[in-house]
Amino acid sequence: MSNVLDVSAKGVFPIAVTPFTEDGQLDLASTDRMVDFYLECGANGLTILGILGEATKLTADESRTFVARVLARVAGRMPVVVGASAPGFAPMRELATSVMDMGASGVMVAPAPTLRTDEQIVAYFDMVAATLRERCPWVLQDHPVSTGVQMAPSVILRILGNAPTCVMLKHEDIPGLSKLSAIRAASEQGTVRRVSILTGNGGGLFLPEELTRGADGAMTGFAYPEMMVEVCKAHAAGNVERAHDVFDAYLPLARYEQQPNIGLAVRKYLMAKRGVIASAALRKPRAQLTAADVADIERLVKRQATRLEALK
Amino acid sequence: MSNVLDVSAKGVFPIAVTPFTEDGQLDLASTDRMVDFYLECGANGLTILGILGEATKLTADESRTFVARVLARVAGRMPVVVGASAPGFAPMRELATSVMDMGASGVMVAPAPTLRTDEQIVAYFDMVAATLRERCPWVLQDHPVSTGVQMAPSVILRILGNAPTCVMLKHEDIPGLSKLSAIRAASEQGTVRRVSILTGNGGGLFLPEELTRGADGAMTGFAYPEMMVEVCKAHAAGNVERAHDVFDAYLPLARYEQQPNIGLAVRKYLMAKRGVIASAALRKPRAQLTAADVADIERLVKRQATRLEALK
Amino acid sequence: MSNVLDVSAKGVFPIAVTPFTEDGQLDLASTDRMVDFYLECGANGLTILGILGEATKLTADESRTFVARVLARVAGRMPVVVGASAPGFAPMRELATSVMDMGASGVMVAPAPTLRTDEQIVAYFDMVAATLRERCPWVLQDHPVSTGVQMAPSVILRILGNAPTCVMLKHEDIPGLSKLSAIRAASEQGTVRRVSILTGNGGGLFLPEELTRGADGAMTGFAYPEMMVEVCKAHAAGNVERAHDVFDAYLPLARYEQQPNIGLAVRKYLMAKRGVIASAALRKPRAQLTAADVADIERLVKRQATRLEALK
Amino acid sequence: MSNVLDVSAKGVFPIAVTPFTEDGQLDLASTDRMVDFYLECGANGLTILGILGEATKLTADESRTFVARVLARVAGRMPVVVGASAPGFAPMRELATSVMDMGASGVMVAPAPTLRTDEQIVAYFDMVAATLRERCPWVLQDHPVSTGVQMAPSVILRILGNAPTCVMLKHEDIPGLSKLSAIRAASEQGTVRRVSILTGNGGGLFLPEELTRGADGAMTGFAYPEMMVEVCKAHAAGNVERAHDVFDAYLPLARYEQQPNIGLAVRKYLMAKRGVIASAALRKPRAQLTAADVADIERLVKRQATRLEALK
Repeated sequence: MSNVLDVSAKGVFPIAVTPFTEDGQLDLASTDRMVDFYLECGANGLTILGILGEATKLTADESRTFVARVLARVAGRMPVVVGASAPGFAPMRELATSVMDMGASGVMVAPAPTLRTDEQIVAYFDMVAATLRERCPWVLQDHPVSTGVQMAPSVILRILGNAPTCVMLKHEDIPGLSKLSAIRAASEQGTVRRVSILTGNGGGLFLPEELTRGADGAMTGFAYPEMMVEVCKAHAAGNVERAHDVFDAYLPLARYEQQPNIGLAVRKYLMAKRGVIASAALRKPRAQLTAADVADIERLVKRQATRLEALK
Repeated sequence: MSNVLDVSAKGVFPIAVTPFTEDGQLDLASTDRMVDFYLECGANGLTILGILGEATKLTADESRTFVARVLARVAGRMPVVVGASAPGFAPMRELATSVMDMGASGVMVAPAPTLRTDEQIVAYFDMVAATLRERCPWVLQDHPVSTGVQMAPSVILRILGNAPTCVMLKHEDIPGLSKLSAIRAASEQGTVRRVSILTGNGGGLFLPEELTRGADGAMTGFAYPEMMVEVCKAHAAGNVERAHDVFDAYLPLARYEQQPNIGLAVRKYLMAKRGVIASAALRKPRAQLTAADVADIERLVKRQATRLEALK
Repeated sequence: MSNVLDVSAKGVFPIAVTPFTEDGQLDLASTDRMVDFYLECGANGLTILGILGEATKLTADESRTFVARVLARVAGRMPVVVGASAPGFAPMRELATSVMDMGASGVMVAPAPTLRTDEQIVAYFDMVAATLRERCPWVLQDHPVSTGVQMAPSVILRILGNAPTCVMLKHEDIPGLSKLSAIRAASEQGTVRRVSILTGNGGGLFLPEELTRGADGAMTGFAYPEMMVEVCKAHAAGNVERAHDVFDAYLPLARYEQQPNIGLAVRKYLMAKRGVIASAALRKPRAQLTAADVADIERLVKRQATRLEALK
Repeated sequence: MSNVLDVSAKGVFPIAVTPFTEDGQLDLASTDRMVDFYLECGANGLTILGILGEATKLTADESRTFVARVLARVAGRMPVVVGASAPGFAPMRELATSVMDMGASGVMVAPAPTLRTDEQIVAYFDMVAATLRERCPWVLQDHPVSTGVQMAPSVILRILGNAPTCVMLKHEDIPGLSKLSAIRAASEQGTVRRVSILTGNGGGLFLPEELTRGADGAMTGFAYPEMMVEVCKAHAAGNVERAHDVFDAYLPLARYEQQPNIGLAVRKYLMAKRGVIASAALRKPRAQLTAADVADIERLVKRQATRLEALK
């Protein structure tokens, strides 16, 4: 493994949570343990300060502290991507420069929610590329559910054509399988250079199908990243049915974790239960689990364990 | 079975598709077969002219023809609910009066997309109730994904309190499990009368959990309604694990069918494949399946068959 | 004047209201008077069944009755455009065929609210053109505030290039002056054929500036259509300052009438006050004026009369 | 004048722009001049780092530098309100604490764009009040156009009832006149304490009517703040017609400046033209004026000068 982020990236880049203590402070000890956990699971990279990393709830100082801690613990063993979407280019450049200086491998940028036409979107990412400068590899995040911006395949191809520093597409559009096929077809025909595509569609809920369409792996945050690692490995080895078998075993719980709004609370509950982080606490504003939610989760975890046993 | 729609309704009310011939005409022979199919699957009711019934693509005459054909074939063997959401109350009353005269059991109404505040939503449904008059039982459809309107539990309770003719809640909010719990708690405490609650959350993707929270059944459109029937029966019989087992066996395909945009094309493909309808054609504007989509579906159907075999 | 609608259309096409009696019935006597009023004001055409014509609150029968009555009263003295936006192409074709058979001059179509990418929008209007067939001239309505769809100038040019039957752009985007300039520049350079452009930006709140950018007139619904007629005439005569003078005299009231939500109630109040329609009643769901609103309007009307006196 | 912000605040609080040099750096000399300009115009307070202050385009350091500079120049001569809306409460508290320590008089907070139901909105502002603590007076910003959140009058009353530190409502809803009337009626009936209400509806486009409904003044950013000062003074002196006369004289230009998207560019152009700021430059992403836009503005400025002359 290396910490370089380029178009050859593949495998699983979990979207890390940001651990807090019960009283809402950054939990750096849990941060270390979380990094170790992802490495042990076989992660090929890590993404921090994404939407589900509660990035917007951190102060600027806390963000820097958290990034530094993660990078120190990773110690070059895998690339680390940092979320850098911002409403203005001045704070975007500041954050990107700062995290690249600290040792990050690249940043991830989603379109501003106000963009609508193809032209506006392409122009925006031209400015992003100019803002980030030549030594900063970046990931284009296509996530209409959170941004409201729909990027046609032709728009993505234009962005990739304009910006040599864009090395990866994080594909999260739904429906997105046809889009994925279209982008892969374009690079196979030589219309555009081939970049890495990692998917996060519905939190990975279409992972086996996406790999079949040409995705290089997953960038998403399910509390059982080993599922994504196994699915990617089986698929890469040509064992597509095995990839589906593994995926199906985890699907009922993954589905529950992907509920909008309470999903992150479910994920943190599971990661605390697994001993990865000390507390499942989210910062405000936040959704909270009820006793009935926890009962649902516990049932699903138990049933999952049985299925995993059968799968061995 | 009877064709009355009241607060005691339970079980499965499939959302019917509207069958078209390859060249886009209403397919009445397939309509008959579809009604038979739903009855054979054990459906407890039927919902027609919903969003996924392509209601807005029919002319007024076609709507009447389709409703009449369905009602004739059902022949009183189960209640039929007709979607009646409309931007104005004059066409809503016209449609409701017309279908009730034809023999429908009730209508379903979602909030107008422009509503925002609690007060506006409550006032709107007061007008709906006045528009539909006393002899028309109606279903309150809570579907924020399509309407953009979020109804708090307290708002739903106020609507139920104001409108004695509202006999059912179609619950499709995500996250919705806590809302479901809150509404059931209110009727258990006697704050509000108990109405029937059928769920369609993500096309039934949370059915077992919803039944645990007090739902009476499902109103949604998966191409394998027998899944929903079996899950409801097992759950009603107290066999919750069995309900989950059945659900899990169908989940990978149900997930695929629930993709926004191409979902209805998937459903119609499956129903045509099963011989229920003659053609998978949708009317324009429409999404279309690619060869790769069909390959995905075929793989999932095959894998599902294996799981169902094991489940027996 | 003739009733043909083609690319040479210019001047003022008021957006007609739909008159109701106090108890909510279609008011056909007021419909006649309204047609006469628009003709007396110097209107060059008429648009009916638009959003502010409460089209969605009419039953299918009422729509036909209203269209027939308007066409009978107009009696070929000016072209009549009928709003035909619909969620599906079957009802769009039915409505368009029906009103063209009755003697309408063309129809107006806005993009479906679900469209996002350039490709989707262009494909949609290709289908619209195919749906309407060759003998139906149509108006492309660009109204992002109500549809949520933003059409770039390049998209509009592609639509015009593809559809010879599209004879007019109804321009209502804000900010839209630059878009207007871009479209006119394209036809001057011969990139695209020149179509008629009528504007409705904010209810005509930018009319003098739009004429300067190359608009051919206005299609909007202010209760004093004579303002738009005079502004257009003065501008066409090269008297731009006079055009602004007239416009400014009406602006305070026009601004008040353009408030979202209560705007149509203000317009109908004014038209009833002017004796054009018998009642200011809107159909439900509707906004209603308070006594304080009426006091505002009365003050503005009085002040406007003084300014108009000074302008003579 | 004093720098205290409490429920007795009235008059005009301009929304300040953030001046940049031609090459995009913070322009502190222009910042000083701008503060002087607002004081000379008769401003009763100042609001900085709002949406139209390009707050999101500043780095954290730049924000602090700008706030410090403004406060130093104001030197206690009027209250300064700082925009503090943030997606999380940790950065909101950090910013609020920091600017209050520097000498700001209060902060302004809008609802998070994800809020929908009455309950969610009330709960959110309970958390805001808890986050800001007791010594920080704050302004509740009601601006549905930018947030998408519609707050019913009853919701605003609940927020005011819960949070004694909320001293002002910035009212920017359209249609908002009835809401304004409802809130004033409640405090007159003693249902809720009376807070200051400043309005910004459409950039002040309804100022005379809002004063009649009980507003205490304006908080908005028109490049001619003297208009708002004069309108408020005339209205307070009981000369309502004079208030309208002044307002009407500026309306054609105010209307042009309120265009979505290019509005801020128009405002900065005018402020640079008036010598208040050295450059009209906006930071990216930004809209830019064309030569035709500038021609429009110059014509409107000239016509406005003539009207003002006549008004003397």
